[in-house]
Amino acid sequence: MIIVGELINASRKNIATAIESKDVEAIQTIARDQHAHGADYIDVNAGVFVTKEADYLKWLVETVQAGVDTPCCIDSPDPKAIEAALSVHNGTPMINSISLEKERYEALLPIVSETEFKIVALCMSDKGMPQTVDERLAIADELVNNLVKKNVALENIYVDPLVQPLSTDVRFGIEFLNSIEIIMKTFPGIHTVCGLSNISYGLPERKFLNQTFMVMAIIKGLDGAIVDPLDKKMMAAIIAGEALAGKDEWCANYLAAYREKKFEV
Amino acid sequence: MIIVGELINASRKNIATAIESKDVEAIQTIARDQHAHGADYIDVNAGVFVTKEADYLKWLVETVQAGVDTPCCIDSPDPKAIEAALSVHNGTPMINSISLEKERYEALLPIVSETEFKIVALCMSDKGMPQTVDERLAIADELVNNLVKKNVALENIYVDPLVQPLSTDVRFGIEFLNSIEIIMKTFPGIHTVCGLSNISYGLPERKFLNQTFMVMAIIKGLDGAIVDPLDKKMMAAIIAGEALAGKDEWCANYLAAYREKKFEV
Repeated sequence: MIIVGELINASRKNIATAIESKDVEAIQTIARDQHAHGADYIDVNAGVFVTKEADYLKWLVETVQAGVDTPCCIDSPDPKAIEAALSVHNGTPMINSISLEKERYEALLPIVSETEFKIVALCMSDKGMPQTVDERLAIADELVNNLVKKNVALENIYVDPLVQPLSTDVRFGIEFLNSIEIIMKTFPGIHTVCGLSNISYGLPERKFLNQTFMVMAIIKGLDGAIVDPLDKKMMAAIIAGEALAGKDEWCANYLAAYREKKFEV
Repeated sequence: MIIVGELINASRKNIATAIESKDVEAIQTIARDQHAHGADYIDVNAGVFVTKEADYLKWLVETVQAGVDTPCCIDSPDPKAIEAALSVHNGTPMINSISLEKERYEALLPIVSETEFKIVALCMSDKGMPQTVDERLAIADELVNNLVKKNVALENIYVDPLVQPLSTDVRFGIEFLNSIEIIMKTFPGIHTVCGLSNISYGLPERKFLNQTFMVMAIIKGLDGAIVDPLDKKMMAAIIAGEALAGKDEWCANYLAAYREKKFEV
């Protein structure tokens, strides 16, 4: 499972404050903590600062990578902000995300074409958020085929089928999960990724629902997650989920994580 | 989800003691508690008392049903014990279980033929425990077809694909889960059921692994479980699992269980 640490997001108050005050130590501490707890990528998002997003995103990439030897997940819908961040990024970043929304798609496609970047392909178009498996698969199909035509390797594409709240429609969980399964089967070698906390919107015990939904997504084939790696219960769901799904030979990772107290039940 | 309350099993010391001392109140209290916490069937098992099993099982059925208006799950491999229990059972029992083991199969088939009993069909033969999906499906296929030929309705058959410990083979979880999925798709209208605590044998945090595995089984289609209904964390996994799987319209059951503090996270 590829873990993208989600904490350095300016929609969180402490992060917005750290960015505005250029608090290097605060950002690097959070980056290091996430890496130490299993993050393969450090998500950086400065989307709340509309006019300064590009500058701030660039500063975040520089700051994070000066503190920890990990690639970033550059999280923005704005091609200008992404290009600013890319100009200082070391190694191979993840780009979060391209979609079928016309403006975003046309601006981002040239940036990611012919690269080795890991690319999150969001199942979203100008028709709005997809609801069914078929709607998701139609968007995924077009996005994936177009990326591959532009010499992006299938193994570098991470499809995000987009979770919607279960409280809105009882089918929204299962449609998402079945999308994961079908996308993984339709494009062998591809990846799926998501931030799944939307599933529990409007319901009590949200963290527990998110963990439970993560377990279901893992058995359906999900192999990437945008999560808080410091959340030991979520990490328990991921680590146990992967073991039970047969992805952890001899349960070695589960047993090591248990011994090192990396999860909580 | 059909819940079979597993607590009245003589392999538990307090139950064995209660049976030997004919402690009606102790047995009825446990039966009532399980029913109050969602058990649709009360499992009764006196298998540790080899020579007295039939007598004790009969007494258990009488005692349970005098205390609570719930059918029993008559849990024995011994046709004589099952017949003794059936002679006093009110309503439609569940029989746990028939299998393809020749002796057991031949003795039990006449007992369950042409009945409305709920019948657990265990994926076990004289060749031993099945390990792969194909081995399980072959046994299930033969058992189900033979039962249907004897006028047992498909809707009354509960296939138990038999869980084996993940610590023995990393594939044992996924082979079991895929068996659930394929059995549910191959025989529309059939049910699956299991006691799944074997999955975690030999690993730390067994209860947590069992809950996590339950969530996976639910999304694969499991619709029956032999569990401790007083285990509020396991019930949380089941109730949340069913909601996320789209089986709980408006999340009504999840919300009610939350309000009534029927689960713990």
